[in-house]
Amino acid sequence: MSRVTGKAVVLLSGGLDSATTLAVARDEGFECSALSFDYGQRHRFELEAARKVAQALGAIEHKIITIDLHAIGGSALTDDLDVPKDRPVDSAADEIPITYVPARNTIFLSFALAYAETIGSKDIFIGVNAIDYSGYPDCRPAYIGAFEEMANLGTKMGVEGRRIRIHTPLIDLTKAQIIKRGIELGVDYGLTHSCYDPDPETGRPCGRCDSCLLRVAGFREAGIQDPSGGGVV
Amino acid sequence: MSRVTGKAVVLLSGGLDSATTLAVARDEGFECSALSFDYGQRHRFELEAARKVAQALGAIEHKIITIDLHAIGGSALTDDLDVPKDRPVDSAADEIPITYVPARNTIFLSFALAYAETIGSKDIFIGVNAIDYSGYPDCRPAYIGAFEEMANLGTKMGVEGRRIRIHTPLIDLTKAQIIKRGIELGVDYGLTHSCYDPDPETGRPCGRCDSCLLRVAGFREAGIQDPSGGGVV
Repeated sequence: MSRVTGKAVVLLSGGLDSATTLAVARDEGFECSALSFDYGQRHRFELEAARKVAQALGAIEHKIITIDLHAIGGSALTDDLDVPKDRPVDSAADEIPITYVPARNTIFLSFALAYAETIGSKDIFIGVNAIDYSGYPDCRPAYIGAFEEMANLGTKMGVEGRRIRIHTPLIDLTKAQIIKRGIELGVDYGLTHSCYDPDPETGRPCGRCDSCLLRVAGFREAGIQDPSGGGVV
Repeated sequence: MSRVTGKAVVLLSGGLDSATTLAVARDEGFECSALSFDYGQRHRFELEAARKVAQALGAIEHKIITIDLHAIGGSALTDDLDVPKDRPVDSAADEIPITYVPARNTIFLSFALAYAETIGSKDIFIGVNAIDYSGYPDCRPAYIGAFEEMANLGTKMGVEGRRIRIHTPLIDLTKAQIIKRGIELGVDYGLTHSCYDPDPETGRPCGRCDSCLLRVAGFREAGIQDPSGGGVV
């Protein structure tokens, strides 16, 4: 572990990417406060996973904020639309998927910004990925850069010259590279949860949604066994 | 009333500025969906005011989203800090007031963005004001411009070329000018509520917080009687 470089806020969904992001932030020496959201998502097993991951990876605190995205609607992750299944992994990059939630990362980053300013942190980590998820507009580097600019103009911290940074350590990595990096850093992927449409009783992943298929393909390419059995039907 | 130009989302706190903003949006011909937040604020009378204002000014719907800013803390409006009283009105521009809530407008605009995209609106109205409230970094034109840029990069709508606009019709107006404009448009300021620290039983404004003092000064300068008696001790 390197020296402590300050406090960071890490957005933590309980999935593979955000767990790896937390591990990277810790490895860079940050004291990490994890932030998760209960937003009426179907995959509430994520929140249980987030709790376990936060603890296992040494977050100094973990807040879960309840927000009512359901009142706004508009996505297969919060509405009664069907989650698409069995799509080729490559197709994720070609179009904006139905699982796109309007302004979700903007809302999440906004809360992270408020939290960061409140605890005196100028570093926010988010596990967005522009390769596997280029279908989501709010996972692209240009968007992240624009959010950072806005954050520095719209906060006391930014105005007073403590420059806020949005860290995206996974943005250029493939899923396999993310997994390899996480394994190096000691992430227990058995604790993580990726499925958009798990069994409502057991939390068992469906193995067929985009997220499961990307996870399976990532572990396969990395040549590593997925300890969660996640995504494998 | 001019022609209908489309749907708009209007952030509505129940205060004088946001009521005027809703009236302006209606006057420009928009079908308005009003959006308010229950965020554990001390001045919950605002939400009652917001309901009345939305109805009186012909919003086609009014959503109130509950968010837990209290869990994050950090401001006199959500914490147990004292609301400052009896400060000279001019002093508001000199420093960032203790009533600043970290990233509040960013969080509010993010929800407005999600809501707008869900209902197919590309127009968001917010009653920020850079003159009376230049102490708040998230009320300045540069910030609003940066948010708009980010919104267009981070949403399906923006990426598909339906340019999102953040409208700030009050941004360059003095409080007196805002009041005169609202009166022209038929706003009943008797329905609005501005105080940061109202009587917890009656909702009666304290008359001494920054918001009350600005309101009193605004009505005085406009040469108009405040129908709410708001801000007058």
